[in-house]
Amino acid sequence: MKVNNLLLSVFLVLSFSVLSALSSFNIPHIISANDDQIIDENLIDQTKDFKKFEPTWESLDARPLPEWYDNAKIGIFLHFGVYAAISYGSEWFWNNWKNDKVPEYVDFMKRTQNPSFTYQDFAKSFTCELFNATEWAEIFADSGAQYVIITSKHHEGYTLYPSSYSFSWNSMDVGPNRDILKELSDAVREKKLTFGIYYSLYEWFNRMYLSDKYHAFFQQTYVNNKMWPELQEIIHRYHPEIIWSDGDWEAPDGYWKSKEFLAWLYNESPVKNTVVTNDRWGSGMPCKHGGFYTCTDRFNPGKLVEHKFENAMTIDKKSWGHRSNTVLDDYLTKDELIREIVSTVAINGNIAINIGPTMYGKIEPIFADRLRDMGKWLRINGKSIYGSKPWAHQKEGNDTWFTMKHGESRDSVFVFIFEYPYDTNAVSIASLADFVDSSSKVKLLGYSGIVKHQLSESKNAFKIQFPEKRFIDKAGLFSVWTFEVDIPKQK
Amino acid sequence: MKVNNLLLSVFLVLSFSVLSALSSFNIPHIISANDDQIIDENLIDQTKDFKKFEPTWESLDARPLPEWYDNAKIGIFLHFGVYAAISYGSEWFWNNWKNDKVPEYVDFMKRTQNPSFTYQDFAKSFTCELFNATEWAEIFADSGAQYVIITSKHHEGYTLYPSSYSFSWNSMDVGPNRDILKELSDAVREKKLTFGIYYSLYEWFNRMYLSDKYHAFFQQTYVNNKMWPELQEIIHRYHPEIIWSDGDWEAPDGYWKSKEFLAWLYNESPVKNTVVTNDRWGSGMPCKHGGFYTCTDRFNPGKLVEHKFENAMTIDKKSWGHRSNTVLDDYLTKDELIREIVSTVAINGNIAINIGPTMYGKIEPIFADRLRDMGKWLRINGKSIYGSKPWAHQKEGNDTWFTMKHGESRDSVFVFIFEYPYDTNAVSIASLADFVDSSSKVKLLGYSGIVKHQLSESKNAFKIQFPEKRFIDKAGLFSVWTFEVDIPKQK
Amino acid sequence: MKVNNLLLSVFLVLSFSVLSALSSFNIPHIISANDDQIIDENLIDQTKDFKKFEPTWESLDARPLPEWYDNAKIGIFLHFGVYAAISYGSEWFWNNWKNDKVPEYVDFMKRTQNPSFTYQDFAKSFTCELFNATEWAEIFADSGAQYVIITSKHHEGYTLYPSSYSFSWNSMDVGPNRDILKELSDAVREKKLTFGIYYSLYEWFNRMYLSDKYHAFFQQTYVNNKMWPELQEIIHRYHPEIIWSDGDWEAPDGYWKSKEFLAWLYNESPVKNTVVTNDRWGSGMPCKHGGFYTCTDRFNPGKLVEHKFENAMTIDKKSWGHRSNTVLDDYLTKDELIREIVSTVAINGNIAINIGPTMYGKIEPIFADRLRDMGKWLRINGKSIYGSKPWAHQKEGNDTWFTMKHGESRDSVFVFIFEYPYDTNAVSIASLADFVDSSSKVKLLGYSGIVKHQLSESKNAFKIQFPEKRFIDKAGLFSVWTFEVDIPKQK
Amino acid sequence: MKVNNLLLSVFLVLSFSVLSALSSFNIPHIISANDDQIIDENLIDQTKDFKKFEPTWESLDARPLPEWYDNAKIGIFLHFGVYAAISYGSEWFWNNWKNDKVPEYVDFMKRTQNPSFTYQDFAKSFTCELFNATEWAEIFADSGAQYVIITSKHHEGYTLYPSSYSFSWNSMDVGPNRDILKELSDAVREKKLTFGIYYSLYEWFNRMYLSDKYHAFFQQTYVNNKMWPELQEIIHRYHPEIIWSDGDWEAPDGYWKSKEFLAWLYNESPVKNTVVTNDRWGSGMPCKHGGFYTCTDRFNPGKLVEHKFENAMTIDKKSWGHRSNTVLDDYLTKDELIREIVSTVAINGNIAINIGPTMYGKIEPIFADRLRDMGKWLRINGKSIYGSKPWAHQKEGNDTWFTMKHGESRDSVFVFIFEYPYDTNAVSIASLADFVDSSSKVKLLGYSGIVKHQLSESKNAFKIQFPEKRFIDKAGLFSVWTFEVDIPKQK
Repeated sequence: MKVNNLLLSVFLVLSFSVLSALSSFNIPHIISANDDQIIDENLIDQTKDFKKFEPTWESLDARPLPEWYDNAKIGIFLHFGVYAAISYGSEWFWNNWKNDKVPEYVDFMKRTQNPSFTYQDFAKSFTCELFNATEWAEIFADSGAQYVIITSKHHEGYTLYPSSYSFSWNSMDVGPNRDILKELSDAVREKKLTFGIYYSLYEWFNRMYLSDKYHAFFQQTYVNNKMWPELQEIIHRYHPEIIWSDGDWEAPDGYWKSKEFLAWLYNESPVKNTVVTNDRWGSGMPCKHGGFYTCTDRFNPGKLVEHKFENAMTIDKKSWGHRSNTVLDDYLTKDELIREIVSTVAINGNIAINIGPTMYGKIEPIFADRLRDMGKWLRINGKSIYGSKPWAHQKEGNDTWFTMKHGESRDSVFVFIFEYPYDTNAVSIASLADFVDSSSKVKLLGYSGIVKHQLSESKNAFKIQFPEKRFIDKAGLFSVWTFEVDIPKQK
Repeated sequence: MKVNNLLLSVFLVLSFSVLSALSSFNIPHIISANDDQIIDENLIDQTKDFKKFEPTWESLDARPLPEWYDNAKIGIFLHFGVYAAISYGSEWFWNNWKNDKVPEYVDFMKRTQNPSFTYQDFAKSFTCELFNATEWAEIFADSGAQYVIITSKHHEGYTLYPSSYSFSWNSMDVGPNRDILKELSDAVREKKLTFGIYYSLYEWFNRMYLSDKYHAFFQQTYVNNKMWPELQEIIHRYHPEIIWSDGDWEAPDGYWKSKEFLAWLYNESPVKNTVVTNDRWGSGMPCKHGGFYTCTDRFNPGKLVEHKFENAMTIDKKSWGHRSNTVLDDYLTKDELIREIVSTVAINGNIAINIGPTMYGKIEPIFADRLRDMGKWLRINGKSIYGSKPWAHQKEGNDTWFTMKHGESRDSVFVFIFEYPYDTNAVSIASLADFVDSSSKVKLLGYSGIVKHQLSESKNAFKIQFPEKRFIDKAGLFSVWTFEVDIPKQK
Repeated sequence: MKVNNLLLSVFLVLSFSVLSALSSFNIPHIISANDDQIIDENLIDQTKDFKKFEPTWESLDARPLPEWYDNAKIGIFLHFGVYAAISYGSEWFWNNWKNDKVPEYVDFMKRTQNPSFTYQDFAKSFTCELFNATEWAEIFADSGAQYVIITSKHHEGYTLYPSSYSFSWNSMDVGPNRDILKELSDAVREKKLTFGIYYSLYEWFNRMYLSDKYHAFFQQTYVNNKMWPELQEIIHRYHPEIIWSDGDWEAPDGYWKSKEFLAWLYNESPVKNTVVTNDRWGSGMPCKHGGFYTCTDRFNPGKLVEHKFENAMTIDKKSWGHRSNTVLDDYLTKDELIREIVSTVAINGNIAINIGPTMYGKIEPIFADRLRDMGKWLRINGKSIYGSKPWAHQKEGNDTWFTMKHGESRDSVFVFIFEYPYDTNAVSIASLADFVDSSSKVKLLGYSGIVKHQLSESKNAFKIQFPEKRFIDKAGLFSVWTFEVDIPKQK
Repeated sequence: MKVNNLLLSVFLVLSFSVLSALSSFNIPHIISANDDQIIDENLIDQTKDFKKFEPTWESLDARPLPEWYDNAKIGIFLHFGVYAAISYGSEWFWNNWKNDKVPEYVDFMKRTQNPSFTYQDFAKSFTCELFNATEWAEIFADSGAQYVIITSKHHEGYTLYPSSYSFSWNSMDVGPNRDILKELSDAVREKKLTFGIYYSLYEWFNRMYLSDKYHAFFQQTYVNNKMWPELQEIIHRYHPEIIWSDGDWEAPDGYWKSKEFLAWLYNESPVKNTVVTNDRWGSGMPCKHGGFYTCTDRFNPGKLVEHKFENAMTIDKKSWGHRSNTVLDDYLTKDELIREIVSTVAINGNIAINIGPTMYGKIEPIFADRLRDMGKWLRINGKSIYGSKPWAHQKEGNDTWFTMKHGESRDSVFVFIFEYPYDTNAVSIASLADFVDSSSKVKLLGYSGIVKHQLSESKNAFKIQFPEKRFIDKAGLFSVWTFEVDIPKQK
């Protein structure tokens, strides 16, 4: 069954002549110019040049994370798929209904659909009829986020682009009849945001995968026939600069060929120089190998994380995908959201703020409302977030947090105050006592007036006096107040 | 065709015997106990007792408005119908598409539906599958509203209850398969809120109505066969205490039999003692005859209105029904909403705050968010709103508004400050100068501390000193700050 | 509520002026020119001229049946409505499911639809997307039928035209979005066939009707508001020459105002001179009063019926509406169908052969196949059917039947042979013995050769010798063989 | 990426231990017991025993066709897929609409669906809600057919079983939610009929295939990832005894790996001893290589075909899949069908009679009607068809055809008369003149009486005298009359 390698070489030579001959033919529109990546992986192997990275964790982990990512700090995460058309429970609807048989989900289906209704039947309602990628990109850009990650495929297996390996289960064939990845990546880049994709390695109900699993992962039909070529197709076609892997936990990295994939990604892919990846590359891998760590969902441990990480969290506290069965308390308030940003960045994290758009392809207003407030805050306080680094101290108590930036002559420490000191109108920061010197000055971000400060007499606290509250409010500050304190450079 | 009256009397006697005989039979469940109101109006006529009100505007307008209404001040208005399943443009979708042929709507249909798709076909998607009337009632009660008005039927003709006169075009026959009016009226009353209904007199596409219109309203087939019995059925069945008429403008009150209807409503209906109505009873009637005035949508003229009125307005500034094609700026902010309430109540208005629930039967979070903030504000400032009266002055400039309440020995004036005086932390109120006396005290609603004040030296302004802003904020005050000033009773 | 009669006259005069003034306006297209019939019945009353028929059965029954009907003999009956979109069980699906709760139907719905699916929801699938009225009319004309009756409204209440009294439950508002009655009546008349309508007096689930029923039919809301104006609207608009009433059995003719209706129909309607009606005008009426009798469905008593009747029967033996859950044995064979025709006509009946078209608006091929064979047979044997009369004898045994026609000098008796006499190739007809004379001749319809015959020696049977079978077959004769025997005119 | 072979052996040993360990685990129901065939093809290779057939046409063509097939003569062909839910035009709907853009199809879609409606969206309507495989099998068995072939996958790519390689585009995931192949194969075998499958090699819109095609078939992604494993899965799971390949014409057999497939099928598959295949294995292959020949659709050349062939034809003359837009003339009459059978068998053909079931999963009555007549005919005349061989002459003129059977002492020639000799009641068969001898006897199949015959005086024709037609008819003979003539065995 294996084509002889010698023959293959001959074919290769021939194919180029034939292809150039073909170029004047009328190619069916369904094949776009960049579809040439759907080629035998062996052909790709033939053209490999020098490989910098080896398919070993030792080698792969040694790759430095491209700098843009740490500087960006804030991303928007989008869970968008057929679950948006159900809009009930969460994006795990299918699994909860069919695998776990959670009564609430089973009952919902009994109540609302006929007995032979399948999950796939929901795709018809996933119309995206109001989807306007530019409108989304404007909301994201206005929110202060620097990158956008979207589920190119979630555990349901449905792809948001016309995948060659997911016929009739993608956004071109059923549902919107549009290439969502194409529209969104174009719009996002137009707004100077970075585009990344989420990709679920496993699929709950893909029979190839289930067969591999049934055979204890000694066979790799799913990986070879589906996952590997599909992931390559996405990368070749959309050039995502983040590959956010997920759904890895049931099988070891060997089954997924994760190391081989990353070596290819870092050595040869069109995004090899700029791409960042996460750590979900097989059971036991998260928090241990890969690019930035994500560890668990909503990872925010409250103390410094040495390895760069990302806190992937949600504004709807209970779901990543859109839900209609929410109550208002399910959504983070603007205060909660802004504090989550600060407490994440302070400990070396990026934050990926998730939103589930609706089946119509709209960002629900409650999300837009929170993002607008976040954007307002970041326009005032962004200096303390973008490009910042964790400081020697990350927090003091639960309501005071720090980041820092290196300056030319002196460094800046940013002090974030979560709870306004209504009674004293002042805060005392012990952590700063050993760092400030006599020339240290204090600024309140967004406020142009002078801020009084002093080292306490006992020299164990640096006291900052807030301006009168009415003047702070007049300047439009809210939620978290940020002081910038300059200190001598540390050695 | 007219059954002889003598025979009728015989029938009447007979019918009682027969009906009592029937009582042991198995009556189809589709006929509920209170369906007995669908009876020949002549039978009703037989039981008429003394009529207080005549079917003349002179007599009807003389009826005093039941007191509960003016005291309640704040209602929730709900536009809920098949348009929620389209969720595009507004509740006027059908008219815009088919009558006015507005290109945007025509295009939307061309883009999203097949050519023979009718408006009625949308009803299938109006599932209300997440509708929980108690959940709604809790949101409304928590918002501080005192009554709830829902579209029992909008211009589309679709009824939210199993109308005997709208077969297959009501919420039991197509769509949710539920009696929305029943569920909502029960839940709303459970929360001690008053229940009212909106009813559109005309229907854009009802062929009986169109024929009447074509005949220059010289025939009244629609009114006799449809409107009149349906309205009576609703009142008999749900006992609404507000009848919010609309869709009256194409025909005179004579066509609609409005005066006869109101006379019946006030004299004989089951809600005759408590019901309030509005003024939309025929072309030329609004702002002239009926119960409270509504004049035009979003009526808020900025100065005292002698006749009790209601400002029916929307949180989504562009639509009464639910829309998915919104941008965040389409929604009132909490500041705008609270100011609208104050500026309406100050000039003798009630306010009906409209929300369009979704086709799933949910209040979208953005609305719940605004209502929650409104509720917070009213829990602090409600004293100045509920049961209040317009004061001698209604406003001073655009940012200071007044209401008042009579007390036993002295009256209270409520002063609403829309713009916080950041620079001075004080306000000077000229309007109060002639009313205060030396014993006048000032309280800031929601704040327990003392509020300094003084008559200006020239005696032409009453100056109120705000407490320090941080203390006000600590108390949780926001958006509009309300001072209560006691003054001697006026004669 | 009753407009004064004097005023009415004034209005009448005024209305003409206004209407002529209106004539230059832009009238909404939804009102077609012949919608002017939707006028107050009192107005019609004003224009009444001399009434020939009184609203009594004595008077109405005395009306002679228009001759065309008896001559036509064969009609096509069409049951077409929303049940075609279910295509399961029969056109009584809704009643079987919801009223009788027949397990098979309840289970079917549980198996195929969601719990809140209503009967009305099926209308969406009743698309008629392939409906071509001309194609139907050609099939009917080719079958030899002379008239076509279609369900303008069956017990479900759905009308096949845009009824002014069935808003959103008619073929223009939901389903095909077409006026089926208009298209079909035009096409049928183009083919020189007569057009008639079936109309169900009652509606299973119309709440007006159910309320009337609950009140023991002492109120007539349904009849006044719905049935009466709708029936008039159909007649004014489509001029049907058959009114085939049904669904009458639950109430007396007094409730339905049947006598008044027929008096109007015979005296004043646009079809007063040509229309025929049946006998289903109230409980106890069938087989007793009205026009032609139908008695029960599939009425074919096997012996002479003095009063003209119609055998309304079905090719699908178990259903009038289209079903998909059939087996081949459910359909009449061509032999059975042709024998049914003969045995009906022989005893003074017309036959209405029912077909249920599909939801696509097509005549299923199995029906077309039977109709084609029927047409072939009638083209050969039609002389013995159309315009024929029952003879002195209607049958002899079960397999020999007779009709007759009066000629100028002599009469013709038609002898129908159901079972071919394979063994003898001859038949002996006792019934003819007393009628034939020596000059009687015998012809085999469709066969040009000579047919031998003779009176038996005992003179008690008339023996007809068949030609050789191969010659009969060559001529294309089949199923039932018809001999024409001329006899002296009877006195 | 290629697992080392040595390692593989180790894995193999391990895997058995692991699998047996797993056997007590709770295996998800989605994996059925016979899913173990989805294993790496290399594993299969390891177990290969001696291979009789080489993957060359020379070797493959030399395989004798299993005898059962030639004896069976008559099969039912079923085209069943998503096109049944459109039921318009033919099973090529998708191609006609999207690739060829045939105006009629483009218009149909514009008229009946919204612009973003995709072909895949039709799957929801392919409910098969009335599908009962036993009912089908009974109809087929009763028709006299001996085998049944069904489209396991047509050019649309939709599979009638839960293919592991066609996720969300198969009968379990969208549409009926059932395994049609399983239900049908069980039912068909229960009736002692042989079960076969049709499989389309290509898929019009599969992006893997289109990419291969775009690369001039120098890559085989589609064949490797999809076609090959899917075909094996079907064979392992349903053990079809006919593989009816189609959709081969765009690429050479090398691309399809046809020879390798057939070698596997004949050497190793579970049906290796009994399976028959056809000739559609690549461009240029039909009528040249493979098992029985099909050459073109409806292949019936009118003269002897040396190589066993099959005439695959349709009762609906214009379509293989179900259509609703037919007229009666589109269907073969029983006479045409029976003549087609005879004229095919006479020249060495089998006949596969195609029927397109409806989206409900029903055989439309018109098909059942034709099959019932065919069954009646075959119960009388089957002896001349099943197990017969072409005779020295296949036909004489156009209306006399022959088959033969070898007997122990003498042979039988079957003479089929298409046109009844009405005028002479006798036929003269020149072809028989040289074969009959003096002891030759003649029987009319289905008729027990004596048949007169004689060699003409000139000895150049054998004259058969029909019995009287009425006796033939009494015996139930029709359409084609078959005489059996015994002749001396030929040397």
